[in-house]
Amino acid sequence: MKINELESVTIVGLGLLGGSVGLAIDRVFPHIKRVGFSHRQVTRDKALEAEVVDLVYNNIPEAVRDADLVILASPIGTFSDLLGQMAEHLRDTAVVTDVGSTKVLPVRWGQKKLKGKVEFLGSHPMAGSEQRGVEFARADLFDGAHCILTPTEATKNSTVKLLSDFWEALGMLVCQMSPNEHDKVLARISHLPHVLAAALINCNDLEQMMLCGKGFLDTTRIASGPAGVWRDILMANASNGAAAVGRLIRELQKVQKTLKEKDEKKIVQMLTKAQLKRNELIEKKMLRKELPE
Amino acid sequence: MKINELESVTIVGLGLLGGSVGLAIDRVFPHIKRVGFSHRQVTRDKALEAEVVDLVYNNIPEAVRDADLVILASPIGTFSDLLGQMAEHLRDTAVVTDVGSTKVLPVRWGQKKLKGKVEFLGSHPMAGSEQRGVEFARADLFDGAHCILTPTEATKNSTVKLLSDFWEALGMLVCQMSPNEHDKVLARISHLPHVLAAALINCNDLEQMMLCGKGFLDTTRIASGPAGVWRDILMANASNGAAAVGRLIRELQKVQKTLKEKDEKKIVQMLTKAQLKRNELIEKKMLRKELPE
Repeated sequence: MKINELESVTIVGLGLLGGSVGLAIDRVFPHIKRVGFSHRQVTRDKALEAEVVDLVYNNIPEAVRDADLVILASPIGTFSDLLGQMAEHLRDTAVVTDVGSTKVLPVRWGQKKLKGKVEFLGSHPMAGSEQRGVEFARADLFDGAHCILTPTEATKNSTVKLLSDFWEALGMLVCQMSPNEHDKVLARISHLPHVLAAALINCNDLEQMMLCGKGFLDTTRIASGPAGVWRDILMANASNGAAAVGRLIRELQKVQKTLKEKDEKKIVQMLTKAQLKRNELIEKKMLRKELPE
Repeated sequence: MKINELESVTIVGLGLLGGSVGLAIDRVFPHIKRVGFSHRQVTRDKALEAEVVDLVYNNIPEAVRDADLVILASPIGTFSDLLGQMAEHLRDTAVVTDVGSTKVLPVRWGQKKLKGKVEFLGSHPMAGSEQRGVEFARADLFDGAHCILTPTEATKNSTVKLLSDFWEALGMLVCQMSPNEHDKVLARISHLPHVLAAALINCNDLEQMMLCGKGFLDTTRIASGPAGVWRDILMANASNGAAAVGRLIRELQKVQKTLKEKDEKKIVQMLTKAQLKRNELIEKKMLRKELPE
């Protein structure tokens, strides 16, 4: 199937991400029928009111029956069960993907539960916010953000092309990695900052933190993210997460040694390296228009 | 001396902080003569152009001669020398303070170099930005931010009252601590996040970081701060800094163990604790009008 042949897309799970996918589809492909699934009446009502989908179902068989593309946008912990529910009701030509923040387990579940009869290809659109719920959905949520596709040897090229075109049409910068590599990299650049922000909050007293400035608040911002979503992510990528935390601990042990020894030269090296490296990161992201100048 | 008797204030060091003090003084005390010192011609010219002071000197004796209040706003590493230069030229009734981010060493230098003849009381106005230079000075930089005064047993009540009134007039929330307590608390809520942000950048590859999202960028924002300023701060508070890093390492070791054991219950506890604690922090700061609602 090609991108211009898509007629019906089903979004399973209508939160901030699922809702934003719906709005973004409508912006570029107004002819596509957008079907939504949620098991909660209040979410289905809100989704229709916010017009993130054209119609909603409270059961998976009906929701996926006519879909050319099914997008799992519920918490990772629900994927396995949902894939099992939909397996028998999907069209042979359908493609299934997800928007989960880890990829090894979703891809394994997808290939197992759909038994290779229907194509599963993992996607990780790296967009979001601390806000939750379909009422915060935005058509421009994906603009300029990265989307990582995680094909395996079993994935058809046509499926990679379809989803690559799909996310690009929604405004994203698409790249590919294996599920394993994805989870390793994400543990370092996404899951690690999250547990770190939580650890920094947890090792401090509230009274002392009341004196903190903007720097501390920014450094810990993501610790305010939803605990349930992050539990799923960390559980699904626990061993890579533990390895990433280990890397950081070793780096901090070096810093601690440098401070204990009052080694001015090494402190300057450490600070300067970080300053230059982050500035290079910001400059490159500006050049690629990922950040405003 | 009382706040309404202040006639002349000298700001030593005309960067973002010193310049902002000058602009903020003019906003509330337009009658006060603002004198600036910088050893660089280009800084003196910029300071006059930005009108952060009324006149500038390139030598300490002239700059402090008529001052009722002297404010050190240069890097901490320069304090000891500057205090020595001004000691013989200050009026007997003058009060000297600083805006440094550590307090044990500045207070020790102040009391030693001014030999108790002139009052020294440390201040830490907790405001700033990653921007540097007098051209970024703002009259409202201090609005709603905390300022910690660090009196010792030798400090006169009248001096505490003067500086408390001064920073409050500039828009700040003033509190008091001993220099020791200040440095311990700041190591945890300010210096620790800084080395942590640097460590997170330093333990990651640039290519992988190119995929990062807004969360990572926020968590590491302060690593872009000026290395020279932070070298001074970390060197002046190295042992408290090392202890704070140690606390965080122990917290991260607990997290690592939890991930290795895939202990879902503990992961949820850790995430939920951090989420609730940070939300409480934000709510309290909003109630105190430190943050917009």
